[in-house]
Amino acid sequence: MTFECYSMLEKYMLSCVKKDDPAHDEQHIYRVLYAALEIAQAEQGVDYNILIAACLLHDIGRPEQFRDPRVNHAAVGGDKAYAFLTEYGFSDGFAGRIRECIYAHSYRKGTPPQSLEAKILFDADKLDVAGALGIARTLTYKGQVGEPLYSILPDGTVSDGSKDESPSFFQEYKYKLEKMYSRFYTKRGTEMARERQNTAVQFYERIYQEANGLYEAGRERLNAVME
Amino acid sequence: MTFECYSMLEKYMLSCVKKDDPAHDEQHIYRVLYAALEIAQAEQGVDYNILIAACLLHDIGRPEQFRDPRVNHAAVGGDKAYAFLTEYGFSDGFAGRIRECIYAHSYRKGTPPQSLEAKILFDADKLDVAGALGIARTLTYKGQVGEPLYSILPDGTVSDGSKDESPSFFQEYKYKLEKMYSRFYTKRGTEMARERQNTAVQFYERIYQEANGLYEAGRERLNAVME
Repeated sequence: MTFECYSMLEKYMLSCVKKDDPAHDEQHIYRVLYAALEIAQAEQGVDYNILIAACLLHDIGRPEQFRDPRVNHAAVGGDKAYAFLTEYGFSDGFAGRIRECIYAHSYRKGTPPQSLEAKILFDADKLDVAGALGIARTLTYKGQVGEPLYSILPDGTVSDGSKDESPSFFQEYKYKLEKMYSRFYTKRGTEMARERQNTAVQFYERIYQEANGLYEAGRERLNAVME
Repeated sequence: MTFECYSMLEKYMLSCVKKDDPAHDEQHIYRVLYAALEIAQAEQGVDYNILIAACLLHDIGRPEQFRDPRVNHAAVGGDKAYAFLTEYGFSDGFAGRIRECIYAHSYRKGTPPQSLEAKILFDADKLDVAGALGIARTLTYKGQVGEPLYSILPDGTVSDGSKDESPSFFQEYKYKLEKMYSRFYTKRGTEMARERQNTAVQFYERIYQEANGLYEAGRERLNAVME
């Protein structure tokens, strides 16, 4: 890819990202791009033009999903990327392959990645849900939407999230983050996720201990000093 | 304290907390109360009526500060608590001691805690900025106000936050969270904070490594595949 082409795609990406969304700002895009390049190094026959363009443009449908949560940003983003690229003179074939990568980067769209570049983008994007970065991005999102860290069980202790119906950080950890490490397509993506897994597991275990330890002992101490 | 009195104070507290603010919702209040009771157990001569009331009411000035950030929630909260308690028939002396505790629980108000109960409340509240809970609460706040995880240095690598002027999670970690472990007043508060310190340090070090590792190698890989 030429520097001119990269700059043009980057500029379009920057016009689409929400700068005040720490989980999906432009730094998320650069992390996904850099992780994709690391994964690609362990693969044969990667088309770097496709991969770089797909990484830069993979979340350009976010504003539409943000305005209307029923919209799928992968579907909108793929179509926006195709329209943008063909308008700028890229071939139907090239624009179509990037659209496929973007369609397939989200679980929710229901179209699993087929091409090598789509698998690399998928893994690089999911890697940003792993480890400390995944914990941090999930927590900023919980703050944004105003959901609690955890729910309280009927007996007054802290729920670990595993049986929760109402949304919270612990619930998202148990339902999504904890289970995501086995869902990578590439060898290097799987390795990178596993290297980060321990940090996330330890953080969850520690925050659960910190919180629940207070409630369990605190409720007894409170009863002991009440009249 | 009687259960009736506790319920009345709790009800007033619940009417003042922002339920969609995971860093300052009612669970923050219960954690502070329970931590305060743990700290109090290691002290002599604690007045539990003062301590419990001060813990329950310490953040009732938050809505005013949320509406106008120039307002100090500790100052407003202390005055609100005094007015509420005297209206409900508590003595001037009792209401005044609780006002002092609430005034002194925030660094920003500039009135350091003097009474034992004020010192315990201060430590219990600061403990919720320590460890994994402190990391989590800071991150949800960053999401709420739309500030990034970190800043990028002119050379394109990730700033560790230590010399940043613009706000980010890394900046807040370096300027506030990292330095807070030496600022406790009570013996048990200091111990509890130290028990949590390692989790926070490790999380910060790991997220910095995860992010900066990607940028350092990624920028080189990108240049290598560009034409």
